Amino acid sequence: MKVKFGLIQLDVSSDKQRNIERARQAIEAVKDADVIILPEIWNSPYDNKCFREYGEPFGGESTKMLSEMAKKLGKYIVGGSIPELDEDKVYNTSFVFDRNGEMIARHRKMHLFDINVKGGQSFCESAVLTPGKEVTVFDTDFGKMGLCICYDYRFPELARLMALKGAKTIIVPAAFNMTTGPAHWEIMFRARSLDNQVFSVGVAPARDVNGSYVSYANSIVCSPWGDIVKLFDEKERYEIVEVELDKTSEIREQLPLLKHRREDVYIMAEK
Amino acid sequence: MKVKFGLIQLDVSSDKQRNIERARQAIEAVKDADVIILPEIWNSPYDNKCFREYGEPFGGESTKMLSEMAKKLGKYIVGGSIPELDEDKVYNTSFVFDRNGEMIARHRKMHLFDINVKGGQSFCESAVLTPGKEVTVFDTDFGKMGLCICYDYRFPELARLMALKGAKTIIVPAAFNMTTGPAHWEIMFRARSLDNQVFSVGVAPARDVNGSYVSYANSIVCSPWGDIVKLFDEKERYEIVEVELDKTSEIREQLPLLKHRREDVYIMAEK
Repeated sequence: MKVKFGLIQLDVSSDKQRNIERARQAIEAVKDADVIILPEIWNSPYDNKCFREYGEPFGGESTKMLSEMAKKLGKYIVGGSIPELDEDKVYNTSFVFDRNGEMIARHRKMHLFDINVKGGQSFCESAVLTPGKEVTVFDTDFGKMGLCICYDYRFPELARLMALKGAKTIIVPAAFNMTTGPAHWEIMFRARSLDNQVFSVGVAPARDVNGSYVSYANSIVCSPWGDIVKLFDEKERYEIVEVELDKTSEIREQLPLLKHRREDVYIMAEK
Repeated sequence: MKVKFGLIQLDVSSDKQRNIERARQAIEAVKDADVIILPEIWNSPYDNKCFREYGEPFGGESTKMLSEMAKKLGKYIVGGSIPELDEDKVYNTSFVFDRNGEMIARHRKMHLFDINVKGGQSFCESAVLTPGKEVTVFDTDFGKMGLCICYDYRFPELARLMALKGAKTIIVPAAFNMTTGPAHWEIMFRARSLDNQVFSVGVAPARDVNGSYVSYANSIVCSPWGDIVKLFDEKERYEIVEVELDKTSEIREQLPLLKHRREDVYIMAEK
């Protein structure tokens, strides 16, 4: 079975209304895709100072637009992520909508990005954001898909748990930076795909060198053999990438990594 | 603290005595190293038909040579692996000797390599070998080191468990082939090093295109940042590679992946 992913490497600005309108047009531009994917934090700058101001509860204007577009086009939309307000908390949250515009999954980023690379990138998400605590896998007409956000994908545990829950594809709205991106972006996607024998799709905001946080961009699709199927550059781009999902089961048969796990020796499970 | 690894990418033949003698000379050639490492199955062809014939119990001539050399040189030797006979069973086993020639660790390959790639490599280790069931980490003057064999390293669980047990270096005698080698060798070492913030050292037999199993070779050292520090080609080669072990703690401080694991969400443990 083939599936068409619509990758939206959006140019995100500090104008929320403009971001929502641009995202709507971008979704329209890849309407022939089966699963349309936005990047991490697409309605707001990626900046601790902005998350609360640009944030909104579920049902706010950003998720409303996503739901409407999913229904209008009859396609799945993985809504990248937005700052989600819930009571007094702020989460970095990805909402997924089905062909009817119904919300079928919600992933709140569970590993917050607190790093301080010498001479490189610093960021402390946990100063503002609250982490989620759920492993997210959802059903589609194209099999089960896993969903996590950026830094979450650094952790082999989470990717493995999604694969063990049946994900054949893992979708990762993300925004690596100019320190970690060149060093780790491709290898992370390739290795997770290879180890778990899944397709991985990473979708990032376009690079804005004048932003307070500069996204590495380079949206990517990797195969279950660890190959790069598609790699964008840094510029804004909306594009449909088609993959043959049966490749997953074919590779799992030839190189049965998931079957060869030594469950008698180690435990890898949700708590 | 710096450590010098002595990588022995040995040319392995079907003459066991010649292999042992060649290994002894190779060890002598890198005697200035702190930790000397042989490849997977260095005293026998990598062939199910040979394992029992070339195998020996601990204390046989191969391990005796390793112990003697470790004591003579006053260095650690990670003895690659040999077919180990124990009662009626055959294991693919790596023995480690300290500066006094004492055996301080033994790892029996725990994930057996049973694959069948369409138009590529087939192998069924489990037809002959018995798998081990222990996670192996040992103490040295250079901190704790993890040890596993080839296909074992495919499994993120095992690498993670070694890191959680304190390994700052993971040593992997291995022998990828001409299908999986070009596709997955570098990415596996780079990703395991990066994810677990450890140095990885992979040591393979030299490539013999006339062998029944053709080793990809390409012995490798990767840093905790996921960089390749050293990569051999396919030819026989003995070489000392020095690394700065403090890099591990430095990177763990800047990008605290091990600290950011969500132990409240998932369990990753030995059984």
